[in-house]
Formats: sequence, structure tokens, C-alpha cells
Amino acid sequence: MITISIIGGSGYAGGELLRILLNHPRVKIHQVTSRQFAGQPISIAHPNLRKATNLTFTHPDKLSRCDFLFVALPNCISMEMMTNLKKVANKIIDLGADFRIHDKDLFEKWYHKKHTSPELLGQFIYGIPELHRNEIKKALFVACAGCEATVSILSLYPLVKHDLIKENVIIDAKMSSSQGGMDFSLASHHPERAGVVRSYMPVGHRHTAEIEQELKGLQVAISATAIDMVRGLLVTIHTIPKNNVTVH
Amino acid sequence: MITISIIGGSGYAGGELLRILLNHPRVKIHQVTSRQFAGQPISIAHPNLRKATNLTFTHPDKLSRCDFLFVALPNCISMEMMTNLKKVANKIIDLGADFRIHDKDLFEKWYHKKHTSPELLGQFIYGIPELHRNEIKKALFVACAGCEATVSILSLYPLVKHDLIKENVIIDAKMSSSQGGMDFSLASHHPERAGVVRSYMPVGHRHTAEIEQELKGLQVAISATAIDMVRGLLVTIHTIPKNNVTVH
Amino acid sequence: MITISIIGGSGYAGGELLRILLNHPRVKIHQVTSRQFAGQPISIAHPNLRKATNLTFTHPDKLSRCDFLFVALPNCISMEMMTNLKKVANKIIDLGADFRIHDKDLFEKWYHKKHTSPELLGQFIYGIPELHRNEIKKALFVACAGCEATVSILSLYPLVKHDLIKENVIIDAKMSSSQGGMDFSLASHHPERAGVVRSYMPVGHRHTAEIEQELKGLQVAISATAIDMVRGLLVTIHTIPKNNVTVH
Amino acid sequence: MITISIIGGSGYAGGELLRILLNHPRVKIHQVTSRQFAGQPISIAHPNLRKATNLTFTHPDKLSRCDFLFVALPNCISMEMMTNLKKVANKIIDLGADFRIHDKDLFEKWYHKKHTSPELLGQFIYGIPELHRNEIKKALFVACAGCEATVSILSLYPLVKHDLIKENVIIDAKMSSSQGGMDFSLASHHPERAGVVRSYMPVGHRHTAEIEQELKGLQVAISATAIDMVRGLLVTIHTIPKNNVTVH
Repeated sequence: MITISIIGGSGYAGGELLRILLNHPRVKIHQVTSRQFAGQPISIAHPNLRKATNLTFTHPDKLSRCDFLFVALPNCISMEMMTNLKKVANKIIDLGADFRIHDKDLFEKWYHKKHTSPELLGQFIYGIPELHRNEIKKALFVACAGCEATVSILSLYPLVKHDLIKENVIIDAKMSSSQGGMDFSLASHHPERAGVVRSYMPVGHRHTAEIEQELKGLQVAISATAIDMVRGLLVTIHTIPKNNVTVH
Repeated sequence: MITISIIGGSGYAGGELLRILLNHPRVKIHQVTSRQFAGQPISIAHPNLRKATNLTFTHPDKLSRCDFLFVALPNCISMEMMTNLKKVANKIIDLGADFRIHDKDLFEKWYHKKHTSPELLGQFIYGIPELHRNEIKKALFVACAGCEATVSILSLYPLVKHDLIKENVIIDAKMSSSQGGMDFSLASHHPERAGVVRSYMPVGHRHTAEIEQELKGLQVAISATAIDMVRGLLVTIHTIPKNNVTVH
Repeated sequence: MITISIIGGSGYAGGELLRILLNHPRVKIHQVTSRQFAGQPISIAHPNLRKATNLTFTHPDKLSRCDFLFVALPNCISMEMMTNLKKVANKIIDLGADFRIHDKDLFEKWYHKKHTSPELLGQFIYGIPELHRNEIKKALFVACAGCEATVSILSLYPLVKHDLIKENVIIDAKMSSSQGGMDFSLASHHPERAGVVRSYMPVGHRHTAEIEQELKGLQVAISATAIDMVRGLLVTIHTIPKNNVTVH
Repeated sequence: MITISIIGGSGYAGGELLRILLNHPRVKIHQVTSRQFAGQPISIAHPNLRKATNLTFTHPDKLSRCDFLFVALPNCISMEMMTNLKKVANKIIDLGADFRIHDKDLFEKWYHKKHTSPELLGQFIYGIPELHRNEIKKALFVACAGCEATVSILSLYPLVKHDLIKENVIIDAKMSSSQGGMDFSLASHHPERAGVVRSYMPVGHRHTAEIEQELKGLQVAISATAIDMVRGLLVTIHTIPKNNVTVH
């Protein structure tokens, strides 16, 4: 039995992770942290887990040792805590963006923020098993891929591996509302967001950095459109075949 | 030309009112107030009015005289300001609930708040023209009916007038998300609110008081269900015909 | 291992049933019939079962013996076939309406059709386990309850059993689009059906008969409203407590 | 007063056209044809026009002279009737695709059908006023642009005119359900179509031909994705600036 704790377990990503782990036969959930809900039952934040667990949220100050730590925090927070978190568990999987990009300058260019733990960047394996299965098996630290990056990399990887496409790739992403997480605003207010088809990020999507890192040689342009959908995303990827590629 | 100002013009009700008044041939919009957007163009809050007006929002402290004042504020705010607002215009139409109910005790029972201007309650005409057309024509002060009350009263009025139904009436209301106004919360966050069919107020809806006031003799029970809809509402009203009523 | 066949397996009810049965550890699916898809893989009608089964649809004329037969046909068809179906399996569960109502006249009043196998009506147990668990265990023939009837009966049963409510009950049902099954029409065409809130059956819903049969003494009035939802339904049930009932 | 008739007035395009024309101060609707609804009021097909007109549908065999004829038929039907329709009115505007493409071979390549009136192709002006205003003013015959082509051409035209972009252009279109018109099918059945994000035409969209005809020199690749939306469409167009274009 592996003991697992989740840092930041009251958000959408933490809730889904918990739902999966609670069904895992060889996992025991040790602690799930939340400042806001400390001491209250998990199901207050995740009503769908009402009968699945009797756990309560733990305040992050009361973290104790476990085998495996999942970090599910908003971007640019885990980099400030990672040195401390390494004392809690030998193996850490970060769901956020902080350690996905190996190059400090690239991270800072896309996230407009100074990286506070650049010395750790090299220790994290990028978490797509189809590309890094063996490294992930041996890894102490894994940085899970972004949602939009995951579907793009998995779709493009075979084409890149077999050298079938030219370097310029256009990714047109149709995005759902839960991708912004649980932070609500006027923009996510139902009367404003329902029925929307809006080109909210026509250029400059930050997952560009991850995709170009993992698929060396590509130059990626992402356009993101918000549509009326709650979960998931769909990407239409436009590529240009190399000259020697023929269609049968 | 009648000059009209709107107090609280940045919300949904204020925006719709403005859209209607801007098309009225005999109306001139004098001022539209907003604390948050004072000095900024109307279209920053109401993008649909971008080419319809060049007005900017006025800070409420800078209100000046006009012929007609519309008040579009959250409930229980206009009652605190009404004495002052009467100095601004001779005629006032309040879109909120503060002056709909003539009986102070009844107001306080349903709104769980002390009424701070009970002496004005008797001066307001309840704003459904089909019931009070002549009084409204001569009125200085009108309290617009609630959304759910309007559709219920208009549907039930002919049955009550002709004495066709028994006193117990059940109103089952299907409600949209914009009825909560612009105040956003986790409950109105698109990932939480989309796809919902939720019995959010099975008993105790406050519009009960208005409906019973206007349709004397009825005893009304309202159940409200939130559905996946942005605008409008639909009520299914269940009545019991009096014994002498026959179906042809 | 129990062998089970499904008559009419290409519709929504048949597909859901199949999904559940394919996960049942003690069940072996024997045949699934479809005239339209005979010989083609199950997944052509139910893409969600693509990896769950390799079965193909069987033409109904090629039915062979099995332990258990589920019938998932449009209303008023199984009553014509039931005598023949009894030769295929000893135990039959009918998902349709044909054998839910014990009283032939009542069936014909609500379904506007002559019942062609009235002699079998008495052999079917109404399929709500919470009410008829022991009879169902021993039953050869079970008539599954209607969707709207199921949720209404389960909600009302405790109130009726403990004699808490008066006989007149109003059921206000919010209905989704899949309840009409797979038969498409202009009314179910997405541009027409999306965004709808429509009182499509304010009186006269046929499930009234089932509910009144199972909850003796009630007089039920159902109003059904179509809302923008694909699966499931929600009922708001309005009851009047008996005089001796008090609220604490 | 100009007298106008509409051939095929019971569909979505015909209904919208009628709504617009009924509000036009210098237009008199002469006849609106429908085989299915001949003799019945317009509002039976277009309930939104209930109080806007008392007209009834005319059987197409009973067409009589008018000034202007609009044709709103499914693709590949008007080309069979056009020679006859020219006897009814001197000026004809076809909303369908039959006469948009000047080149017969190109039409047949994209529509997989022999053009039955190729001699008329040269007489139709492509109906985007921003590109052909003067020709349209003098035209006897106008072929209205396709929905997806209209938004793409209007967006791209300034870039092409000023020679700012390279020839390869990618159009990623997000499509609503009413674009398929009133023909219903299992694919448009609400339970199947609601909530969809589906890449239904990743290559080979027929509007390619129109766009390339109007924007000479471009090579256009359209990908179309169905989303959960009833009206309108949004295109994201990916272009590559020419080398001498700089961003300020």
C-alpha cells in the first residue's frame, strides 16, 4: 500500500485526482490539504465523493510524511514550496506548470514571472508516459503535462517521429469552462459564459513552450476559442506534409 | 422630451432598461449612475450598447435633476436612499423589491430586514399596468413587479377575476441564471451552473408576498427550479377549479 | 452464468441495459436483436460499447433459447409478441409500458390502443424492487416502471406508507430529450429543441396510471415541461400534509 | 413598392429572409412557395412571424409575375428550375450554391453533380456587396455567398487587397446546428447533437471553391467543427504574413 497526499485538493484537478486514486487498489490517501476547508469533510468541496471517502481536509501546515505527494496548486505557487515539499515525500508529481519547462528563461518568458527554484527544473521529468515511460518509472519528480499540451503532443508525436510534417504547425483549440479551474469571475458567470464562442487567446498560449520542448523542431502557433462546454477540449491541428509524403 | 436618469445602471436590469429607453422617441437619457464604472463609457458594462450611446457612467454623488428616475439597485438598498432620491426627480420607478409590498410587517417577514422607509410604502403603486393602469398613469412612485410575480399574476388574474379557481395555487417556476443578476459566485460559475436542474428554492420564495397582495384571497406556494437557461423564466401554475366550473 | 438476450437492442434503453449487463460478472449476453442492424456489430448503434463487446446484432427471427429475456421495444409492440417470446425464455423483463398496468381498461384508456394480450396482464409484477422485492425475486415476468413513474413513486412512497399526505398530488416533471428515445423528428431537431423550456404535456401524462396503481388512494396530476437537457429528469412533487402532520 | 416572391420559403433561410423583407418599407411580399405547406399560413412554418404577416404559402406551380424573385432551395435544385424562374421575374437572387461558382468544372468537382444550366453561370454576380457593389446594383442575377464563405471572405479581403499574406490560408470554422437547415436526422437529434464538439469535416469543405474564386491567389484549407450552438458560426483564420510585413 502506497500512502499518497494531495496538496491543494479542493480544486477541480485535485478532485478528479482524488476520485481516481480512491479507486486504486494499492493506494491509501494519507492527507488532502486545503486552507479554506481545513477540518471539513472532502465532500464539502467534492460532493461526488460523498460516499467514496470519509476523509477531512488537512491544513497545509500539518502535512506529515507520505510515500508520494501530488501537488495540485494554481501556477507559480508550487515553485515557492517545492524545497519544503521534498521533505515530506521522496516522490512528487506536480500537476501545475511550474516545473514542466526545463529552461528557466523560457519559463519566465511565457509565464511572466521569475522562477524561484530554477535549480530544481532539471530534476523534473515531463509527465507524458507515451514519450517518457522509462524515465517516469525511475523519476523522483514528475511535472504533469498541461491539458492542451497533452492532446497536442499525443496527436503530433507520431507525425514528428516519422518525420512526416513540416515544422510549422497550427493548433486550433476549442476550450471548455472548467479549464480555468474554480476561480470564478464575471467572465465565468453563467449568464456571460453560456452560449459563448469566443476567440479568447488567438495567439500566445503558454502551452506552446511545452509542446515545442517535447516535439523538437516544431514551431507551434496555438489559437484558443472558448465554446459552450464544461469539460475537456478538442484540438484541430493543421500540419503541412513533407514533400515526400503521398496520400494513398 | 422627458429626461430620465437611472440609478444603478451597470447591472442586467439597468442595461435592459437602457436598451429600451435609448430607442424611445420621446426620452432623453440624462444620467446613468455606477460607482464602479463612474467616468467610463456605458458600453464598458453593456457592450451591446456600443453604438447606441456615447454616454458615460456618472458617480451617484453627482446626480442632478431630471424628470423621471429609474432605480435599478439590489434589494434593500433603495429604501435607504429614497428620501434623497425624491429630491432629484418628481417621479420615480423602482425596479427592486423595496416598495412592492404595502404592508411593512409582511415586507420584513419575507425579506428578513427592517424597512427603513415604511412611511413611503403607501405612496408606491404596484407596477403591473394590466391591474393598475389608471393609478400608474397618475402615480409619482411606482414599484415594478418581480419577474416571477409578473408572469404569475398575469396568468392568474383572469381566473381570479372571474372567480374560477379555489384559493390554493401552486406555482412551479423554471428559472434562468441571469435572474440572480451580475453577482457572480461559485454557484454561478459556468462549470457548476451549466447543465443544472436543481430545486434551489422548493418553498419560501419571496415573490409569494407580492402575488398574494395583488390577487387577494389566493394562498400561493412557489417552488423554484434552476435550469440551464440564461434569460427568462417559465411558470407552470397548478390550480383547482371551483365546483361550478365545467370543461366543454 | 445466466444467458441473457435483449429484444430491441439498438435504442437508448437497450444500449444502457447492455452497458450495465456487460459489466455484470454472472451474466453472458446471448443475443441482441435489431432488424435495422442485423449482422452488424453492436458498436454501430452504441459507439460507447466499442471495446466492451464484439457481439453483432441478431435478426429477431433468429432468436434462440436463453435464460432471461429483456424486451426494449417501443410501447404497444411487445404485447403482440409476448406469447411467442415466452417460448424463448422462462423469465422476461419488459422495459416498455405494455404490461405495467394490471387493469386492461385502464391501459386502453391511457394508451388509446386495444390490449392484444390481456390474459397476460395479471402475470407481470411491477418492477420497482423497493415496493415488490419479494414478488420480483420469484417472478417469471416483470414490467419495468416508467422513468417518470419511478422517481415519483420512490419519492412519494414513504409519505403514503406513513399516511402523511392528502390524496391530491401534483407532479411537475422537467424532462430531457432522450426520454423520447431515438425517433427523431423536427421537434427533436437540435436547432428546434436546444434552449427549449416548453410545457409540452400540461395534463394527461400516461404515467399517471402507473403511479395511481402503485400508490393506492392517490389522485395524481402530472405536468411535463421539456427543458434543455439530454438525460434524466427531475420531478417537483407538491403534496398537502394531513391535518395531524406538524413541522418541527 | 417592389413585389417580391420567395421560392422555398418554409426553411430556415427562407424564414429569415421573410422576417427581414416584411420589415422593409419599400417591399411587398407577393408569394412564398412551399409544396408541403401550400395553402397554410406562413406562421405554421415560422411561428415567429405569427403577427407579422397573414400570407399563406403558395404551391410552386402557381407562381405568378413579380419584380424580384428570391430562391431559397436546397443545393442543386435551383439549377434545374432557373430557366423557368427567369420567366417569373426579371431579377433573381439565389441563396443556394448552384450559381456561385463561375467555372462549371469547379462546381462539378466540389458538388459531385453535373451542372444542368452551365450557360447561366456567367450571368450571376457573386453576392458580397463589399466586393461587387456596383455589379450587384446593375445585376439581373445574384448568387448569394455561403455562410462560411461570407465571414471568411470579409475577414480575408483587406489582407489580400493590401497584399499582406502568403497564399496558404487555414480556416478553422466552428459551426452551429441550424447551418444544416431543417432536414432532421439521427445526427441532428437533440440527444445526439447537444454537447457535441466534433470535427465533422476536417478537409474538403465546399466553400473552399467560392473563397478561392473571390480571393484570387489564395489556397484555402477549411476544417469545420460542429459545436453546441444553434445559430451563426465563428471562423479562426490562420495566415502567414508576407516577409515585408512587420508588427508594431
